[in-house]
Amino acid sequence: MRRKQIHEWLQSHREEGVRFLQRMVQVPSTQGNEEEGQRLIAGKMSELGLELDWWEPEGERLAAHPFFYSPRSWFAGSPNVVGIWKGSGGGRSIILNGHMDVVPAGNREQWQDDPFSGSVVDGKLYGRGATDMKGGTSALLLAIEALQGVGVQLKGDVILQSVIEEESGGAGTLAAILKGYQADAALIPEPTNMRIFPKQQGSMWFRLEVKGRSAHGGTRYEGVSAIEKSMIVVRHIQELENARNTRITDPLYAHNPIPLPINIGVIQGGNWPSSVPDTVKLEGRMGVAPEEKLDEAKAEMTAWLARLAEKDPWFVQHPPVLEWFGARWVPGSVDPGHDLMQVLIQQYREVRAEEPVIEASPWGTDGGLLTQLGETPCIVFGPGITEVAHYPNEHIVLDHIFEAAEIIALTLIAWCGLEGDEHGGEENMH
Amino acid sequence: MRRKQIHEWLQSHREEGVRFLQRMVQVPSTQGNEEEGQRLIAGKMSELGLELDWWEPEGERLAAHPFFYSPRSWFAGSPNVVGIWKGSGGGRSIILNGHMDVVPAGNREQWQDDPFSGSVVDGKLYGRGATDMKGGTSALLLAIEALQGVGVQLKGDVILQSVIEEESGGAGTLAAILKGYQADAALIPEPTNMRIFPKQQGSMWFRLEVKGRSAHGGTRYEGVSAIEKSMIVVRHIQELENARNTRITDPLYAHNPIPLPINIGVIQGGNWPSSVPDTVKLEGRMGVAPEEKLDEAKAEMTAWLARLAEKDPWFVQHPPVLEWFGARWVPGSVDPGHDLMQVLIQQYREVRAEEPVIEASPWGTDGGLLTQLGETPCIVFGPGITEVAHYPNEHIVLDHIFEAAEIIALTLIAWCGLEGDEHGGEENMH
Repeated sequence: MRRKQIHEWLQSHREEGVRFLQRMVQVPSTQGNEEEGQRLIAGKMSELGLELDWWEPEGERLAAHPFFYSPRSWFAGSPNVVGIWKGSGGGRSIILNGHMDVVPAGNREQWQDDPFSGSVVDGKLYGRGATDMKGGTSALLLAIEALQGVGVQLKGDVILQSVIEEESGGAGTLAAILKGYQADAALIPEPTNMRIFPKQQGSMWFRLEVKGRSAHGGTRYEGVSAIEKSMIVVRHIQELENARNTRITDPLYAHNPIPLPINIGVIQGGNWPSSVPDTVKLEGRMGVAPEEKLDEAKAEMTAWLARLAEKDPWFVQHPPVLEWFGARWVPGSVDPGHDLMQVLIQQYREVRAEEPVIEASPWGTDGGLLTQLGETPCIVFGPGITEVAHYPNEHIVLDHIFEAAEIIALTLIAWCGLEGDEHGGEENMH
Repeated sequence: MRRKQIHEWLQSHREEGVRFLQRMVQVPSTQGNEEEGQRLIAGKMSELGLELDWWEPEGERLAAHPFFYSPRSWFAGSPNVVGIWKGSGGGRSIILNGHMDVVPAGNREQWQDDPFSGSVVDGKLYGRGATDMKGGTSALLLAIEALQGVGVQLKGDVILQSVIEEESGGAGTLAAILKGYQADAALIPEPTNMRIFPKQQGSMWFRLEVKGRSAHGGTRYEGVSAIEKSMIVVRHIQELENARNTRITDPLYAHNPIPLPINIGVIQGGNWPSSVPDTVKLEGRMGVAPEEKLDEAKAEMTAWLARLAEKDPWFVQHPPVLEWFGARWVPGSVDPGHDLMQVLIQQYREVRAEEPVIEASPWGTDGGLLTQLGETPCIVFGPGITEVAHYPNEHIVLDHIFEAAEIIALTLIAWCGLEGDEHGGEENMH
């Protein structure tokens, strides 16, 4: 009955919902340029009567935190915004988290339309951030708006967060955690293709400097090619990847051919065709298992690299230099039997009349921070299309946004409890 | 008798000789900045009564020549200078060729002293260009000065060339050839460690673009790593190098473990640690055998790369793109039995009382252009130290400059002939 009301409310407000997402996508909220987008969100939050918290992350405690990473330490003009929909009391609280920052548009020529057009074609909305993850955030706002539209008052608090810096290391969500935001559970609608991810892979960036010895190319036998040595290093790392993946038995990874990839993304060495290169730099991303600690993964890499000398005695005197740099994403793991999982799966079945796909994510989100550091078990589930995130012609299927909004609205009722309803909310608190 | 006079003249003018080289080294005559150095040379040529030719290379004929390569097409302020010591007639002529341009000093911190200090320590003169090849050029000037000092008049012409652009493709020597300079033979005192090179390796630069397919590093199995594919390409090229070297039977290469190296000097691919790289660029130098044509070597590389698909079907649809770019040095080959070889070897034995080392050079010089295009068989022999050319703390052993000057002076007598002498010069003309 209530499901029907919510469904109808969403159908009859489809146009406004699409227009709001369009406006959000048309704001190019890349790193450092989030303020205008956040104003849009804050405006909508005010409209919905949420209690607003708007602040620019700052301070020593943030920057010195072991989980802090950002290429910048100055967030003026880049506010976080949180809106609280206070419950009437006695229900379970939930954090709903989306990020405002989008990655750069990249090469304009690879886009069929303006990267920030927000244009709608064949039921899809196009533009940078449409999928990752303004579409997800708009589903959160629609869920709250629909609940209010049909006259629902929840028992538990809904804490809606629109954060900065997800794409560059999670400093926005970290700042929200350090400010004290915590709840009984959390949901992040990152682009999962409507799959449900109770676990997520973490990752860290590493850099390796592989050494050779310079010489003129005409007498290259007098030198040692860092390019040839780097090939040994790349193969050695592939073996580590194999070894780590044979340990993965989690059924949530059953359909993933490489659950814990080690990706070498960048190679750079030498500066003159006629010289033997004396250095090659490799940069990559090491996947971290949902239950693994970042430090454990680092230690395994270090120990493995020490064994390079078994492959080639060159490495005895010239071991590659390993450095962990740049972004890292904390992994997260929520028991697939967790109550919020049960609730979410149940609502998914109701709305879509099919079984959801439940997997472990092959990439990190701010959910790892919420689960590990914020003590708020976080599940990732959203309407965006994984494959087009960060790519030209990024888009989202509008139907999925409204389906996700419906599932989330029903999940909020079941999780936070309905005022005046004996069932839901309180009774599920253990 | 005459040898003794020349030897003594050189010994008694050692100080002036060193001072002149010092002044030359103190002029940082990198590409585009050769004029001041050329003025020094021209001044000395005038002092010696040589007939001067000073010009800035230019023109369509030069730029359109198939052997032309330079990163620039504008040589204003970068003159060639040629000085002719006219013979009295009836003798064989010779081109003596040195280049004024030096490679950049590189990282100052790797130099113990200022890179253009010209300072003398323990019988060695230090600075960029000391070995490559202002020391060689000063040996040429000393040889002529010594001959004049002891009252020698040669029968054949001596054409002394100080050219630009050797380090970047030979446009200076090419311009001199196109201007009509030709002789019965040529000598270039590039840094050979006093070895005699009748043959020299040519070389060409190539670039390979190896393709992959991009994907997020977390799902790297959805992509194809251009880094992994480039490893196959590098190994494939190593096999081509092997194949080419097994064909080399020339005894002049007996002591060279890789007579015809293919050096991969630069690798560059990917731009994000978390992405599967879709392109890797390789840049390298392909050695060309003394008797080989550049086009033959190019054709062999092209045919070999076409066989990559046998190693990995990926290359059927995604063959690497091969491009020949930048500098190339034409190989050169003079019969080891050539008269100038005989003369030079004889004088070497006289002066150094030992057998010279005769080899094929592992790198190109402007000698290839002189031999192949200028129809002037060219031998390379000089006092510089191969190993320190292009490196920090470049230096030259001063004794070797004076020994080389003596050998060259005696060679000029034997080759060009002595006025009023029935022996030498004419009688050796076949």
